[in-house]
Amino acid sequence: MALCICSKAGSTTVATDPIRTRPDNFELRSIDLEPVVAETPLPALRAWLTPTPLFYIRNHFDVPELDVDDWSLTIEGAVDTPVKLDYSTLVRLPKKTLSAMLECAGNNRSDLSPKVPGNPFQDGAVSNAIWGGAPLKPFLQQAGLSPKAVEVLFEGVDEGSPVPGGKTVKYQRSLPLQVALHPDTLLVYEMNGETLSPDHGFPVRLIVPRWYGMASVKWLTSIRVLEAPFVGFFQTDRYVIEDDAGIEQQLAQMQVKSFVSWPEHETSLPIGQPIAVSGMAWSGTGPIRRVDVSIDGGDTWQDAHMDESSLGYSWQEWHIDWTPAEAGHYTVVVRAVDEAGNLQPAETRWNPLGYSINGIRAVCIDVV
Amino acid sequence: MALCICSKAGSTTVATDPIRTRPDNFELRSIDLEPVVAETPLPALRAWLTPTPLFYIRNHFDVPELDVDDWSLTIEGAVDTPVKLDYSTLVRLPKKTLSAMLECAGNNRSDLSPKVPGNPFQDGAVSNAIWGGAPLKPFLQQAGLSPKAVEVLFEGVDEGSPVPGGKTVKYQRSLPLQVALHPDTLLVYEMNGETLSPDHGFPVRLIVPRWYGMASVKWLTSIRVLEAPFVGFFQTDRYVIEDDAGIEQQLAQMQVKSFVSWPEHETSLPIGQPIAVSGMAWSGTGPIRRVDVSIDGGDTWQDAHMDESSLGYSWQEWHIDWTPAEAGHYTVVVRAVDEAGNLQPAETRWNPLGYSINGIRAVCIDVV
Repeated sequence: MALCICSKAGSTTVATDPIRTRPDNFELRSIDLEPVVAETPLPALRAWLTPTPLFYIRNHFDVPELDVDDWSLTIEGAVDTPVKLDYSTLVRLPKKTLSAMLECAGNNRSDLSPKVPGNPFQDGAVSNAIWGGAPLKPFLQQAGLSPKAVEVLFEGVDEGSPVPGGKTVKYQRSLPLQVALHPDTLLVYEMNGETLSPDHGFPVRLIVPRWYGMASVKWLTSIRVLEAPFVGFFQTDRYVIEDDAGIEQQLAQMQVKSFVSWPEHETSLPIGQPIAVSGMAWSGTGPIRRVDVSIDGGDTWQDAHMDESSLGYSWQEWHIDWTPAEAGHYTVVVRAVDEAGNLQPAETRWNPLGYSINGIRAVCIDVV
Repeated sequence: MALCICSKAGSTTVATDPIRTRPDNFELRSIDLEPVVAETPLPALRAWLTPTPLFYIRNHFDVPELDVDDWSLTIEGAVDTPVKLDYSTLVRLPKKTLSAMLECAGNNRSDLSPKVPGNPFQDGAVSNAIWGGAPLKPFLQQAGLSPKAVEVLFEGVDEGSPVPGGKTVKYQRSLPLQVALHPDTLLVYEMNGETLSPDHGFPVRLIVPRWYGMASVKWLTSIRVLEAPFVGFFQTDRYVIEDDAGIEQQLAQMQVKSFVSWPEHETSLPIGQPIAVSGMAWSGTGPIRRVDVSIDGGDTWQDAHMDESSLGYSWQEWHIDWTPAEAGHYTVVVRAVDEAGNLQPAETRWNPLGYSINGIRAVCIDVV
C-alpha cells in the first residue's frame, strides 16, 4: 500500500527549471517582522552551503544592538571562579571552523493537520553554514565546574514578553553538562567567513551542532552553571513534545529527516527527459546511512546516490536519476535512515506546538 | 643566525585590532581593471572561508558575457565519440561539493627584488571557497579516450592579445591526463552556495584542486584531448619557471607556503598583552604536517597549534600564543612543512616572471 497519495485534482505547472531558480535570484521568505522570522527559499536548499543572506532566521524578540566594546560573557553559578570574557580576547583565542546545519524545531509546521499556532514554516527553516569561533569547553574548565553541576544555562540579551501581556523574559536555554562540554559546542563570532550579522547573533552566539536551532542561543552574554535542571519559558513551556507514551520532554537533537528539493511539488515534467530527483537528508543523531526514494508513493523504493558533500555537521545531498517513461501521476517520497538505524517515519506525530515534524512528505508530479 | 632581519629604521603603527578589521568591512584590493585583477584584503585572509565578494580575481582578458542557453561544452580531439554538454544537463547531474583554495602563481610577486613585470600582488592572490559541480572524469570516459592521449586542453571563451600588438588568443591551458581524470577535478557552476559569478567564470569553470589558479580555467566551453603536449602562450610562454638546475618547467601544484595574517607587518604591540600570532599554511602536494613559528627571525622555532579547520583542499589555520614580555623589536617568521616533507624555503628563488613565491617573509613587530 502506498504511503502517500497526492490529490489528483487540480492542475500542475511545468516544473521550474532549477537553472532559472538559482539561490542568488531569491530572498528570504518573510514570515514575521516583529520579531524577524524568515525562511530559506527552496532554490537555496539545493546548495550545500546556504549563503548568509538566505540563511533562515527565527528570532524571538527584537534584535539587540550590541557593540563589541561593551560586550562581555560571564560564566558563573556552580563554578570555582567566575570567568568574564571580552570580545577582543575571544577572537584572539584558538579558532575552530566547522560546518553545521541548523533546523528550527518548527520547520514544516504548516504541514500539520489540524493546524497549530506558531510560525507557519514550510520547508525552509533549515540552512547550512560555516561557523568560526572558540570551543566553550576550555572556559567552563577554567571556571572550574562544581561536582554537582548538571546543566549549563545560556542567556541572550534579547528580551520581551513571549505571550501577549505576559512578563518580560530574556531568551534562556540550558544544555546538559556533557553537551555544553562537547568540543564542538562553540562560541561563534564568524559565519561563512564574515563577522556574524546582527540577525544571526552578533557579536557572539552559541552553536550546538546536531540540536534544533533553539539551543544555539544568539546575542549570548551570560552562562550559568546549574546544579538542578533549568525551568523557563523557552525550556519547559515551549520546545517540548510528548513522546509516544504521553511523556512530555524537552526537544534536543534533530530528528532524522529528508526532503526533495527538485522537482517541486505539484509541477509537471516532460515524458522521456532524464532528470535528477534530488534533495537533502540529515539527523541529529549522526551521519546519514541511506536515503530511500520512491516514485510510486512508497510501493517500491530505491537507494539514492549520496552526493559527496557531507562535511562536519552538515546535511547530506542525495539524488536519483529518473527518466519518466510513461505519462501519468507520480508521487515522489523519500525517507532517510541514520547511522544509528533511526528511520524517518511515514507520518509526523502531530503535536500541539508543532515541533519535530519529520514525516514523509509527498511530492506530486505529473508526467505529460 | 637569524633567517630574516627587519629594518629597525622607521616608525611602526599600533597593530590594528583584528576586531576592527573584519572582512565584511573591506573590499577587494584592485590591481588592474582591464582585465580585472584584484586581491583579497588581509582581514579576509583571517577566515577559513573567503566570502565570494572578497575572493581574489586574476582574469587575463575581458569578462565574457555568456548565457546558459547558448553555453555548451564540447569534448573532442583524441576520443572515440565527441561529447557535447549543455548547461541544463550539467546542473542536473550528480553534484560534488568540495572546499578548495586557489593561489595565483604570481601571489607575493611584489616581494621580489629586483622587481619583475606582472601584476604586483602582495599577500592576497589566494582565497578559499566551497565549490559545487560535476566531476570531469565521467565525461572523458563517456567520450572514450584514445590510448595515445597524454594531455587534456581546456579553453575559455575569454580572448585577447596577451602582449601589446600581439595576436589574439583564447585562454588555453592543458593538464596531464591523470590530473584531468582525478575524481576531484570539477566542472564547477556553484561557488559558496550561489551561482558562479561572471568574474569567477560563469557559467562553468574548471577547478583543479592543489594547482595554482591558472589551471582552473574560467568560462570553459571547449575540452580537447591531445596526443602530444600542448604548446601555447599561457602554457609555455607564461606560467613557467626554471628549476635549480636551470631546466624550464611548467607550473603545476602550489608550493608549500604560509603567511602571518595577524599581527600585521610593521605594527607595534603593547608589552604584556597576550595575543595569538596567527595565519594560514598550505601545500599543493598534500596536507600540512607542521608549522614552525619564530619570533626572533629564525633563531628559535616553536610548533604552531593547528586550528581545526582543514577540510578538503583548503588551507590550514594555525596560531601560537604569545605574550610579549619585553619591549623591543621582534621579527616574526613562519615556515610550513607538508606531509611529503617539503619545507617552505627561507628564500624564494627569484625568477623573471615572478612565480611560485614561497620564501619566508618577515613580519616586523615593535613591542612598546
